[in-house]
Amino acid sequence: MKLNISKSNLINAVNIVSKAVPSKTSLPILGCILIDASTEKIKFMANDEELGIETIQEGSILEHGIIAIDAAIFGNIVRKLPDGCDVSLETEGEKVTIRSGKIVFNISGMDGSDFPYLPEIDRSYSLDVSELTLRDIIIKTIFAIASNDANQIMTGELFEVRNREQLRVAALDGHRISVRSVELKQAYDDKKVIIPGKTLMEISKILDPSPEEMVHIYLADKHAMFQFGTTTVVSRLIEGEYFNVDQMISSDFKTHIRIGRQAFLSCLDRATLLVHEEDKKPIILKITDDNLELQIRTALGSMDENLSVEKDGDDIVIGFNPRLMIDALRAIDDDEVDVYFLSPRAPAFLRNEGSYCYLVLPVNFISSYD
Amino acid sequence: MKLNISKSNLINAVNIVSKAVPSKTSLPILGCILIDASTEKIKFMANDEELGIETIQEGSILEHGIIAIDAAIFGNIVRKLPDGCDVSLETEGEKVTIRSGKIVFNISGMDGSDFPYLPEIDRSYSLDVSELTLRDIIIKTIFAIASNDANQIMTGELFEVRNREQLRVAALDGHRISVRSVELKQAYDDKKVIIPGKTLMEISKILDPSPEEMVHIYLADKHAMFQFGTTTVVSRLIEGEYFNVDQMISSDFKTHIRIGRQAFLSCLDRATLLVHEEDKKPIILKITDDNLELQIRTALGSMDENLSVEKDGDDIVIGFNPRLMIDALRAIDDDEVDVYFLSPRAPAFLRNEGSYCYLVLPVNFISSYD
Repeated sequence: MKLNISKSNLINAVNIVSKAVPSKTSLPILGCILIDASTEKIKFMANDEELGIETIQEGSILEHGIIAIDAAIFGNIVRKLPDGCDVSLETEGEKVTIRSGKIVFNISGMDGSDFPYLPEIDRSYSLDVSELTLRDIIIKTIFAIASNDANQIMTGELFEVRNREQLRVAALDGHRISVRSVELKQAYDDKKVIIPGKTLMEISKILDPSPEEMVHIYLADKHAMFQFGTTTVVSRLIEGEYFNVDQMISSDFKTHIRIGRQAFLSCLDRATLLVHEEDKKPIILKITDDNLELQIRTALGSMDENLSVEKDGDDIVIGFNPRLMIDALRAIDDDEVDVYFLSPRAPAFLRNEGSYCYLVLPVNFISSYD
Repeated sequence: MKLNISKSNLINAVNIVSKAVPSKTSLPILGCILIDASTEKIKFMANDEELGIETIQEGSILEHGIIAIDAAIFGNIVRKLPDGCDVSLETEGEKVTIRSGKIVFNISGMDGSDFPYLPEIDRSYSLDVSELTLRDIIIKTIFAIASNDANQIMTGELFEVRNREQLRVAALDGHRISVRSVELKQAYDDKKVIIPGKTLMEISKILDPSPEEMVHIYLADKHAMFQFGTTTVVSRLIEGEYFNVDQMISSDFKTHIRIGRQAFLSCLDRATLLVHEEDKKPIILKITDDNLELQIRTALGSMDENLSVEKDGDDIVIGFNPRLMIDALRAIDDDEVDVYFLSPRAPAFLRNEGSYCYLVLPVNFISSYD
């Protein structure tokens, strides 16, 4: 193989496909980036067998061929080459020579024919959203997935096409639920799949925040495929039935407040100063008239703060893990947030009809407060 | 104690004195910041018994008193208070109330009378340099001190007033030496002390990079004291005789090159990509005519790069640990650097007469290269 490619295209390729390189692997070939110049295109690929990414970059192929190169070493070398330069990649057997100006690197590659290519996906079901929309909807829900895989379904997100023109994404971990919806630009058949959180996190990092560029999402039985620009991402799906989200989201409430998001967030943020990692001390919200009093008491001390709110309905005293409330508020863009409460033992909802709903379970604080 | 102080002054105080709070201590009082409002000034203090820092900040004292507060908790609370606000600090016994607007924190402090105050220092010998100069001379030499304390003297820097009008600072770790000199604005008696590296690192972080503001440095038998603005830093000195730096720095050479600093640095930086942490593989410099060829070969691969240089004297082939050369080049501001070599077994010198001299020992590479 012999090819010439600009450093910027090479960096692009490395940054995109590296997201599918596992941080640890017992199979050295999976720790590699595959460069496939066997056809008229230069393809870069990485695949951890759950998630595979392929991207095509411009360059000139002087001699066809395929090589796999350790992703960490290759990425480091490419990043440290002088900016704006052209790079030549040449292989002789598994020996790789990387040249740029008066710089020559020689490293060992691996036989590219051992590399696991991306699987072929059935393309009969697809939908389109913009890169910006997909990125946004992932970032604003993904924090609610469960981090450990005691329940594998909770480590993924529900992607659901409903009412033919709405894409709804949901994540939950047993303490909270994040739900975001967007209207689709055309009608599709209804569909539900569970996409691994890891896939979505990596995709969100390589999507361009552009409202014009589209992502074509293909949903097959066992895989999802995302195509945008010259990049293709293929992911396994999580099998099984997702939780019934509609059943968990009630619109009953007895107290509604409208509160300044930033002031609420800053207050909760201050409250967490007094909370140690293992410490489960809740923050207590006392809503009376147009005042929200927040209180926290821990082994380190106590904090008390008052915020003005607009209120409808009953007074209420309710406790929360401040971190869960913070995550939800950070995922909201609105300056003012509507929060709905039913009782001290029922979840609170941060909701904007048609766009988002964040549910946070309360903490029973009777034992910790007098 | 009761006092009012702006958040910005409080943050300032916390940021300055925190540098003397030990990260671990078996004596809880040493993990505290002392606030002493027993006189007409508000003093903040921290002291790990090697290094002590005191700073005075503006504010109004409504009730005199002294309190010690855990530095981490206090610092975190202060940082998260709303910007631009005024803060009131009030104590009742060891209970501390921090108030700002509608925010109230209650935390536990400790009896301030147990706190170790800074020692009184003999002020008979002092010299003045600007904050900028002191900061600069520290940052550009300190990397060469030894990180472990197998030899305690190597963990400090030699501060030396010589020829009455020159301050020379030296650091060494057995593989390299950094020496920087500045001319003083007036004459002083000659003097030598060894100041702990930790003290100097912390001071460099709180010095303002200002050429107008002066630092008064007091050098006593067992302590050094630095006064600048309203801040006082007191440090123990390291006892013993420093190495004879003059004897180590020779001006003999057989090869002299002048090389572009950034190009040399980038090349060495690329070369380190192929060096694993424990791996002692040197980079080989082959100087012939007006060309410098750099080569490195490790288990990961090899790199070869050519740079143009101006050369006087003999050709030479010499090996170095690239990281040591990188540290020295990073501490130099000049665009072009003069490097002097005597033989493959003698140190190289990066030197600018009257301002700096960086010595780097070569590595014997015969065993690793053919």
